[in-house]
Amino acid sequence: MNKNKIVNDPVWGFIQLPSELAYDIVSHPYFQRLRRIVQMGLSFLVYPGAVHTRFNHSLGCLHLMKEALDMLQAKGVPITAEEKDAACAAILLHDIGHGPLSHVLEHTLLPSVSHEAVSQLIMQRLNREWNGRLDMAMAIFNGRYDKPFLHQLVSGQLDVDRLDYLNRDSFYTGVQEGVVGTERIIKMMNVHEGQLVVEEKSIYSLEKFILSRRMMFWQVYLHKTSVCAELMLGHTLDRARFLLGENEELAGSPALLQLLRRPSGQAADDTLLEPFSAIDDSDIWFSLKAWTQSRDMVLRTLSQRLLERKLFKSEMRNVPFEKEYIERVGAETLEKVGNADWLPYFFYEKSLSTKSYKYDTKEDDGIRVLLKDGQVVDLTTVSDLLDRHFVMKVDEKHLLCHA
Amino acid sequence: MNKNKIVNDPVWGFIQLPSELAYDIVSHPYFQRLRRIVQMGLSFLVYPGAVHTRFNHSLGCLHLMKEALDMLQAKGVPITAEEKDAACAAILLHDIGHGPLSHVLEHTLLPSVSHEAVSQLIMQRLNREWNGRLDMAMAIFNGRYDKPFLHQLVSGQLDVDRLDYLNRDSFYTGVQEGVVGTERIIKMMNVHEGQLVVEEKSIYSLEKFILSRRMMFWQVYLHKTSVCAELMLGHTLDRARFLLGENEELAGSPALLQLLRRPSGQAADDTLLEPFSAIDDSDIWFSLKAWTQSRDMVLRTLSQRLLERKLFKSEMRNVPFEKEYIERVGAETLEKVGNADWLPYFFYEKSLSTKSYKYDTKEDDGIRVLLKDGQVVDLTTVSDLLDRHFVMKVDEKHLLCHA
Amino acid sequence: MNKNKIVNDPVWGFIQLPSELAYDIVSHPYFQRLRRIVQMGLSFLVYPGAVHTRFNHSLGCLHLMKEALDMLQAKGVPITAEEKDAACAAILLHDIGHGPLSHVLEHTLLPSVSHEAVSQLIMQRLNREWNGRLDMAMAIFNGRYDKPFLHQLVSGQLDVDRLDYLNRDSFYTGVQEGVVGTERIIKMMNVHEGQLVVEEKSIYSLEKFILSRRMMFWQVYLHKTSVCAELMLGHTLDRARFLLGENEELAGSPALLQLLRRPSGQAADDTLLEPFSAIDDSDIWFSLKAWTQSRDMVLRTLSQRLLERKLFKSEMRNVPFEKEYIERVGAETLEKVGNADWLPYFFYEKSLSTKSYKYDTKEDDGIRVLLKDGQVVDLTTVSDLLDRHFVMKVDEKHLLCHA
Amino acid sequence: MNKNKIVNDPVWGFIQLPSELAYDIVSHPYFQRLRRIVQMGLSFLVYPGAVHTRFNHSLGCLHLMKEALDMLQAKGVPITAEEKDAACAAILLHDIGHGPLSHVLEHTLLPSVSHEAVSQLIMQRLNREWNGRLDMAMAIFNGRYDKPFLHQLVSGQLDVDRLDYLNRDSFYTGVQEGVVGTERIIKMMNVHEGQLVVEEKSIYSLEKFILSRRMMFWQVYLHKTSVCAELMLGHTLDRARFLLGENEELAGSPALLQLLRRPSGQAADDTLLEPFSAIDDSDIWFSLKAWTQSRDMVLRTLSQRLLERKLFKSEMRNVPFEKEYIERVGAETLEKVGNADWLPYFFYEKSLSTKSYKYDTKEDDGIRVLLKDGQVVDLTTVSDLLDRHFVMKVDEKHLLCHA
Repeated sequence: MNKNKIVNDPVWGFIQLPSELAYDIVSHPYFQRLRRIVQMGLSFLVYPGAVHTRFNHSLGCLHLMKEALDMLQAKGVPITAEEKDAACAAILLHDIGHGPLSHVLEHTLLPSVSHEAVSQLIMQRLNREWNGRLDMAMAIFNGRYDKPFLHQLVSGQLDVDRLDYLNRDSFYTGVQEGVVGTERIIKMMNVHEGQLVVEEKSIYSLEKFILSRRMMFWQVYLHKTSVCAELMLGHTLDRARFLLGENEELAGSPALLQLLRRPSGQAADDTLLEPFSAIDDSDIWFSLKAWTQSRDMVLRTLSQRLLERKLFKSEMRNVPFEKEYIERVGAETLEKVGNADWLPYFFYEKSLSTKSYKYDTKEDDGIRVLLKDGQVVDLTTVSDLLDRHFVMKVDEKHLLCHA
Repeated sequence: MNKNKIVNDPVWGFIQLPSELAYDIVSHPYFQRLRRIVQMGLSFLVYPGAVHTRFNHSLGCLHLMKEALDMLQAKGVPITAEEKDAACAAILLHDIGHGPLSHVLEHTLLPSVSHEAVSQLIMQRLNREWNGRLDMAMAIFNGRYDKPFLHQLVSGQLDVDRLDYLNRDSFYTGVQEGVVGTERIIKMMNVHEGQLVVEEKSIYSLEKFILSRRMMFWQVYLHKTSVCAELMLGHTLDRARFLLGENEELAGSPALLQLLRRPSGQAADDTLLEPFSAIDDSDIWFSLKAWTQSRDMVLRTLSQRLLERKLFKSEMRNVPFEKEYIERVGAETLEKVGNADWLPYFFYEKSLSTKSYKYDTKEDDGIRVLLKDGQVVDLTTVSDLLDRHFVMKVDEKHLLCHA
Repeated sequence: MNKNKIVNDPVWGFIQLPSELAYDIVSHPYFQRLRRIVQMGLSFLVYPGAVHTRFNHSLGCLHLMKEALDMLQAKGVPITAEEKDAACAAILLHDIGHGPLSHVLEHTLLPSVSHEAVSQLIMQRLNREWNGRLDMAMAIFNGRYDKPFLHQLVSGQLDVDRLDYLNRDSFYTGVQEGVVGTERIIKMMNVHEGQLVVEEKSIYSLEKFILSRRMMFWQVYLHKTSVCAELMLGHTLDRARFLLGENEELAGSPALLQLLRRPSGQAADDTLLEPFSAIDDSDIWFSLKAWTQSRDMVLRTLSQRLLERKLFKSEMRNVPFEKEYIERVGAETLEKVGNADWLPYFFYEKSLSTKSYKYDTKEDDGIRVLLKDGQVVDLTTVSDLLDRHFVMKVDEKHLLCHA
Repeated sequence: MNKNKIVNDPVWGFIQLPSELAYDIVSHPYFQRLRRIVQMGLSFLVYPGAVHTRFNHSLGCLHLMKEALDMLQAKGVPITAEEKDAACAAILLHDIGHGPLSHVLEHTLLPSVSHEAVSQLIMQRLNREWNGRLDMAMAIFNGRYDKPFLHQLVSGQLDVDRLDYLNRDSFYTGVQEGVVGTERIIKMMNVHEGQLVVEEKSIYSLEKFILSRRMMFWQVYLHKTSVCAELMLGHTLDRARFLLGENEELAGSPALLQLLRRPSGQAADDTLLEPFSAIDDSDIWFSLKAWTQSRDMVLRTLSQRLLERKLFKSEMRNVPFEKEYIERVGAETLEKVGNADWLPYFFYEKSLSTKSYKYDTKEDDGIRVLLKDGQVVDLTTVSDLLDRHFVMKVDEKHLLCHA
């Protein structure tokens, strides 16, 4: 890679690294590690094409950030070269804290540490290493820079992160429903009193964007089979952690085992960085394969079923399962597994909701629409389709998985 | 997966498993393992989107086989339901013998065993397990079935394997040059005296197919940077094998180490099956990470450079490098590594040729064109572009890589 | 064209004419005439790529009909070869009654004749010519055949017409918002008690389908600029009709003039067929060019502005324009045109609503969803997004155009 | 259209008009007229999707010109704002002289006037109208501007014209063979001593470009059926011209008839402009329809067969037809038409060659490749595939058409 590198991307075509800082970030081992972390967790068990990585996605975000900033400049929004580099650095680093299989293990591997907290740790480390070169990028990332639109492009209801992942995930899964008119939306962006706004005539594209995201959630991200696989994997790690707690000797990736031995309530701190940055998807698969030889029936069975895609049966409903039904299925499952202590590893009940996945939370940070008359209003006040009722509604589904 | 499963494929749309046999093959752990093996080896270090797997590709081939057989039946070629199932099984299994990173390690991990030999072992094992259900599929696969066109669709100059991988690799790399008019070529297929032929008016599409393949070889498959990475990985494994021979204790994947300890001249036999089917890409990445802690400087350095994509400098030319130039670069490299025993691990010279990659070998099995007047001739006799001179020519390039 | 003709289609790939009847329809001058009629009227003045024809669209519908029927047969729905041919004929002929610029002139050129009425006339004529070969196709077309699902595929809330035009119009305009998961929807179709149903797991695709259609209406079909151009063209023809009524001599296409002289209340009858089938888009453009030399200022001005795309200024709003505003703009326009009799040709006010465009009427013919438990319910009862409130709501917009 | 207009293009996405000059050209009636002229003549009779217009194509060229100039500037090539506007104007106007059906009638309607000559007339007229605003654009267009690369981008072996039409024609025909890596080729462009060059690593893309063009010629542009239709249309106009010479009264478009009455040897001059700019495809279709009522059997028959796509039988071969075969088919045709004077209208023999279509002429203006060592050489000296022998070879085919 020379410092003016162009990369082929199947989604956006050629992506150019716009600065030396971008080049240095991409070249760093922390970033190269993202090549070994799939973007969509275990979704590839349902959509076999979906094996693209956080590395791809991060470069795609960089590309869209550059497009958006160029377009805003062309519209007369003042943005300095340094701000441009910083915003590009911020978006490149926005997912640097992801661990193996992206979101899948976020609350399992390190129960009390979010990927955002790890991102902060890593950025701080890099910034120290690089003597403050990331100061402005971190200010933008954390919403402390006084041009809020830069932060909103990194992280907001209409950030380049979403504009990339919806199209990218559609591309790799083959599910056309998620395709979003990204080029059009970017062309319609503007800045009004420091805030990111979109012009009125993009309303239909915005509606489409919101709904594509909702559809991708239910049709892909929360597909009952991949959620079931994720629950199985989470319980596998839980079992390993339990066995380690019992001083059981376990094979598998040493760095992964080290993290599993960490007290589950311990917050993110620098002791995390070394083992965390040492692991990626290969540690999971390698360990699962090792665990198929474990003496523990639970660990052995779950590992093998994941590797061979012999997933549990799963049912998803719009209304909660009746208590009797849950009990009956639980009893049947217990009969199969033969040990009440083991049941929680083979029988899961879970509610999935958009609240927990925040696909359209409103907070104070909605999508601002710039009307032709110069007013700025929230999207929900001008969209016929996305009225507040719809947008605020919590979609909820109920999942039951059993061996 | 129910036995009438439809799978989303980003390249061909929906793919339907056409038979219970196909379903059983896809469900088998040997086949599920292909989910963890990338199709294009280390090409993703140059084309970051190219992380698709042998699993994807095998399903894609299945789809094209079904399309081709349906079309031939519609043209009146007699094909029984059993033959259809068998041809589909044969194509599903054609890559079952691939090891980690597909072709990359084919001559390094097991120096005297080809992936085809492993495929045979695995098919024989499955056929025993399944009491002969694969008899006809294996006859087709091995060219022993008396309808040669079935074998030619599985393995020939115009097989569905190539028709899938050229389009699929183009799709995932973003390199448009490889796109092939697959749908058109399949529509033009026919059978003449038991042999697969293509109708005359497809000549331009066939020329395009041959040239797309040639371009993909030089622009993608043999890209100097990914070949360099592959050589580095091969030498890393060689070093590990050497150290094991010296009774050095090595961390890393036990199954991988077991294979590396295997006498290098030993042919394929059943003792191979267990360790071989236990490993996939994750064993390579896991071991490389473990080896970054090795006491051996060679193993440690190579492993780290691969993980962090700090690849050697590589040069590629159409003519051989001058002897003096090679010696000079060799001497400079030696100075850097400081030990003549280590030099071969940090300095590679290699000729790449189309012969070794057989992109257009003619043998007796060229592409047969059915002329309007009923004659069948070889493509090179009717193509203005692809005359024998061009097709027989051995393209050769020369590569020099050094730390 | 031989009778087993394959046609290249940029949207669906290769389209095969499935029967001799289909071949004969496509070869007929009535059908070839559709090559000279654009699908999307004057939309190409806004989306310059949208110059595709009714001929393309009709072949696309044929293709989807064939896919749907093949798939239903594969699921065990009994469909005879004759029914298949008839359904294919019905869909090929569904737009045969379209006149120049498709919908644009539907209520202007022949104020009291719909394109469906003309379609009936033409089918009857063809059926007489062909001694009843179209009997079954016409029964299906008119909903008189006792397998209702065949009619529903031709004309219903989820017919192949819509599945083709949404994707096709998206493709040619470059507006991605209209892309629909056609392949997925067709795979999910089934028949229940003779009615077309779709399986429950397609709900997200169906929601997307309904919303894509709504978005295409507002963003493309009812784009204020193309509606304005259509109103201008309608008024141009009205002016020509008025001048003919005044015995003014007019240049232009004789067949077009003949239709304009027809009493406006006259219903569809066989006297219509000859002049109607003689005209296509070229008569409109040719006549507009001739009329730029007219002595009549209104006719001359409108014709020239259409040809040179000097369209009126147009405003579109969600709420009705205030009376005072309309009056003020009217007065300003009057001042420009200088003659109160001419004002209606240069000043239009119009309400556009989804009711008039029926994008989601419910009638008795909604989209039937087959639940997993075997029940069949209307889509709106199971969709979280498309509740009855939303679906029944009449979207209305208000347009003002002035010179 | 406001002066900062963005246009949706299905091939390249959003196209922005880069200057007021570009806006004024696009708005001019001469340019709007291109909306009514199909890009690919009668190819739509074989590829029904290919109904895109010169208007689309000209905007597409504008887009690529802008991309190329931006990229060259980014590489440090000095280009002033005025030169940019002028080059954009030159490419917008490069096809302004095309008449109905683009190339089809180029040597029939005005036998001694090329479309380039008409383009010159129109540019001169516009330049007078606009007081010299097009001076620089015309200098670039005519190769008189002292930065040759600007002319080479407008018209050369690797101009944006070809880069647009190959992709666009592929897109609209559905023939994938013509897709070209335009984005990649543009990224590899540079300027060396004032000449346009492409960097060495683009060689495979350039080979693909040359071959795609060759394939498109034989598979699409020179498809025997559309060439046959074009010959039929040429002979129809010849017949009309002959009848007018005999003082026969003919219906049809007056402006078209005026051009047909023009002495066939008369060169391009200003008297041409008015009738020429008045006609477009609609005049052809309208006249053909009028001529189906002609008393002249030849004119009537040819017109009707074109409208109803009842084309002559056509045969194409790589070697010339034998004299006897031609005579035999001629005699059979004569028997059918019954009049020796009419035979030339119903029986055509024609050789098609790449020379006449100049797909790879070398002249002094080949494709210059900038080698890594700084040398500039012709593509054919560094391409393994495109050696001089192949490139200089005249491909020739022979066509026979008869009623």
